Amino acid sequence: MEEMVAFPMKGGSGLNSYTRNSFFQRKATEDAKELIKKAIDEKLEINNFSSLNTFRVADLGCSVGPNTFLAVQNIADALEHRCKRQGLGSHQLPEIQVFFSDHTSNDFNQLFDSLPSERRYYAAGVPGSFHGRLFPSSSIHFFHSAHALQWLSRVPEGVVDKSSPAWNKGRVHYSNSADEVLKSYEAQYFKDMHRFLSARAQEIVHGGLIAFVVPACPNGTPHSQVFINKTLEVLGLSLMDMAKKGMISEEKVDSFNIPVYNARVQQVEEVVKSNGRFSIEIMESLSHENPQPRAFASVLRAGLGELIIQHFGDKIDLDKLFDLYSQKFEESSLSALYEPEKAITLFVLLKRTAN
Amino acid sequence: MEEMVAFPMKGGSGLNSYTRNSFFQRKATEDAKELIKKAIDEKLEINNFSSLNTFRVADLGCSVGPNTFLAVQNIADALEHRCKRQGLGSHQLPEIQVFFSDHTSNDFNQLFDSLPSERRYYAAGVPGSFHGRLFPSSSIHFFHSAHALQWLSRVPEGVVDKSSPAWNKGRVHYSNSADEVLKSYEAQYFKDMHRFLSARAQEIVHGGLIAFVVPACPNGTPHSQVFINKTLEVLGLSLMDMAKKGMISEEKVDSFNIPVYNARVQQVEEVVKSNGRFSIEIMESLSHENPQPRAFASVLRAGLGELIIQHFGDKIDLDKLFDLYSQKFEESSLSALYEPEKAITLFVLLKRTAN
Repeated sequence: MEEMVAFPMKGGSGLNSYTRNSFFQRKATEDAKELIKKAIDEKLEINNFSSLNTFRVADLGCSVGPNTFLAVQNIADALEHRCKRQGLGSHQLPEIQVFFSDHTSNDFNQLFDSLPSERRYYAAGVPGSFHGRLFPSSSIHFFHSAHALQWLSRVPEGVVDKSSPAWNKGRVHYSNSADEVLKSYEAQYFKDMHRFLSARAQEIVHGGLIAFVVPACPNGTPHSQVFINKTLEVLGLSLMDMAKKGMISEEKVDSFNIPVYNARVQQVEEVVKSNGRFSIEIMESLSHENPQPRAFASVLRAGLGELIIQHFGDKIDLDKLFDLYSQKFEESSLSALYEPEKAITLFVLLKRTAN
Repeated sequence: MEEMVAFPMKGGSGLNSYTRNSFFQRKATEDAKELIKKAIDEKLEINNFSSLNTFRVADLGCSVGPNTFLAVQNIADALEHRCKRQGLGSHQLPEIQVFFSDHTSNDFNQLFDSLPSERRYYAAGVPGSFHGRLFPSSSIHFFHSAHALQWLSRVPEGVVDKSSPAWNKGRVHYSNSADEVLKSYEAQYFKDMHRFLSARAQEIVHGGLIAFVVPACPNGTPHSQVFINKTLEVLGLSLMDMAKKGMISEEKVDSFNIPVYNARVQQVEEVVKSNGRFSIEIMESLSHENPQPRAFASVLRAGLGELIIQHFGDKIDLDKLFDLYSQKFEESSLSALYEPEKAITLFVLLKRTAN
C-alpha cells in the first residue's frame, strides 16, 4: 500500500482554497448529472435490488468539496430512481456508504467538517493514491472520479534530468516541447492508468461501474493548440518571467514539471482496451463555460498553488505569479482556444468485463 | 445523523498532543491484547471463514493514535490466528477493512498521516458520534473502543443550571457533590449507553463482537474514593484556586462540568442487560501502572486541554493549571487511591443476542 507523490488542492476554506475556487470543475459535475442517471438506470447490473443491503460508492480524488458532495448526491438520487423503477418502496431502498478518497495530504478535516448535514449516506474518508489499492476486493458498486485522473503519480522520467533527451528546459509542461518530453508524459499516463484500472478491477463488485470526468484533447488538434495545455504553458511563461526578474531561480523553473497529462480521446480508449478489464459504455463531451482570465487564474491557483510552494518554497509570491498569469492569459487570447474542438471535458463510463 | 457535542483530544504531534501523551491508556490496550485474542478465538461466530471475503473492524473514539493502531493490529493478529486454526492458508486469509472513527473535530489529518506503512488492512476514517449511527446495517464484524465510552454526549441536565437541585457549584465533576448531581450524570450515562448499544446492534453482523475498555468504579467504594473521580475533583480544586487568584472567573468554573461518567461495574452490567441486544461474554479488570503526578497531569492535559480551552477561552494558562494540578496530586496522596479496589480499568466483550 505504497503512497505516491501527492499534490493536494489548497485546504481550509479561505479566499484561495479549493473549496471556494472549484466552480469551473463544478460546471462539468452538474452536466455529468444526467449521464450518471443514465449510467445507473441503464448500465448498472444488480441481480436483486431488494436484497442489496448496502450500495457502496467511492469518489476518487475527491479533494475537499463541495463538488464531491454534489457528485455523490447525484449518484444517490440516480440509485433511488433506479430502485423505485425496480419496484422498491421508499423504506426498502438500500443504505448507501460513501468513501471519499484522496491523498493522505488532502485536508480531510475540512472535508469532514463540510459534509452535508442532510446527507442520506454513511460517510467515510480513505487516504491513499488511486494508482494503488484502496478497498477490499469486490466491495464497491460505483466508482466516481472528477478532474483527477489527469494527475500522474509522479513527474515523468527524464523531463527534469539535464542529461536526458526528454529534459524540458524552461518549460513546466509538454505543450510546445520536444517530442521526447511528450513521449515521457504519455508513457507515465499509460502506466498510471493501467495501475488505476487494475486496482479498480479488483475492488469493484460484479456489474459495478466506474464513471470519470477528465479534461481531454481532441484527436486531431496539436497539443499546443489545446486550451488546457495552453493554460499550463502560460503558467510556465509566467514563472520564466519571474525568473528573468530575479524573483525565482531559472534552475528551479527548469526542474519544475507539472505531473498532469491531458490524454487524447483515442488514448483514453486505447488504455481501457489494452488494460482489458473494462468496457467503455458511455463516452461523451460535457459542455463548458468560457472562463474569464481572473476567474481561471483563481481556479488554477487553488489547484496548483500547493504544488508550486512545494517546489519553489513558501517565499514565492503567488499573488504576483497569478497576476502575471491573468495578464498573459488575456494577451495570449487563450479564451479563443476555448471552443468545442479545442477544449474537451470527457465523461467516461466503464463496466467490468466478465473475465 | 446528528452530531453531538465533541471534545477532541489534542491533535497534531506536539509536546502536549494526545499522540505523545497517551501511554497511560496504552498500558491497558497492551493488557487487552490477550483478551482480544481470546474473544476472536472463542467467541467470534463466523459460519464459514473461507467464504469471508472482508472482515470489517471499527475503532470508536479512536483519537489520533498510536493506541488505535496497536489495538487494530491486535485484532488483525487475533483474526489471522483464528483463521489459521480454522485451516485457512496464508493466502486464504480474509482482507481486513478498518474504520477509524471519532468526532468530526478529531484530527483525522494527523491520524491518516501516522497510519502504519506496513499495515495489512485497508484504512478508512469515519467522522461522527458513536452515540448515533455511523455504519450501514450488518456491516461490522468487530467493534473496538478504548477509553472512550466514559465520555457522555453532553453535559448532564441541571448541573450547570443555578435553579436546578443538580447545580454543581464550584465543582467540575460529581465526586463529593450532592446526590442530585450524581443522579444527573448517571441518567445521562444510561441514556447514552442505550443509544450506543442500539446503534451498534444494527451495525454489527450476526455473530460479531464489541470489545471495549473503560475506567470503572468498584461496586462498594464511594465515588469520592475512586481514583479516576478523584483526579477530576483535583482538577476542579485547581481551577477554583485559579479563580480565587483572579486568573479566571468563579462563574466560569461553576458553569464547567466534565461530561465523563465512570460507571460502577454493576452499572455496566445493568445497562447492557436493560438494553437487551447484547450478552456480556467477558468482563475483566486490566492491570495498571501506578501513575506519577507529572506524567498523569500530561495525560489529563492531552485529554482535557481542548475542552478547557473551549470553555474558558484560549487565554487560560494551561501550564499554570497543570502545574497546580501536579502539586495538588502529590499533596492529596492521590496515588494511594491507585489500588486494585479503587481503580479499575474494565475490559468488556459483548455479543449480539439472537433476537
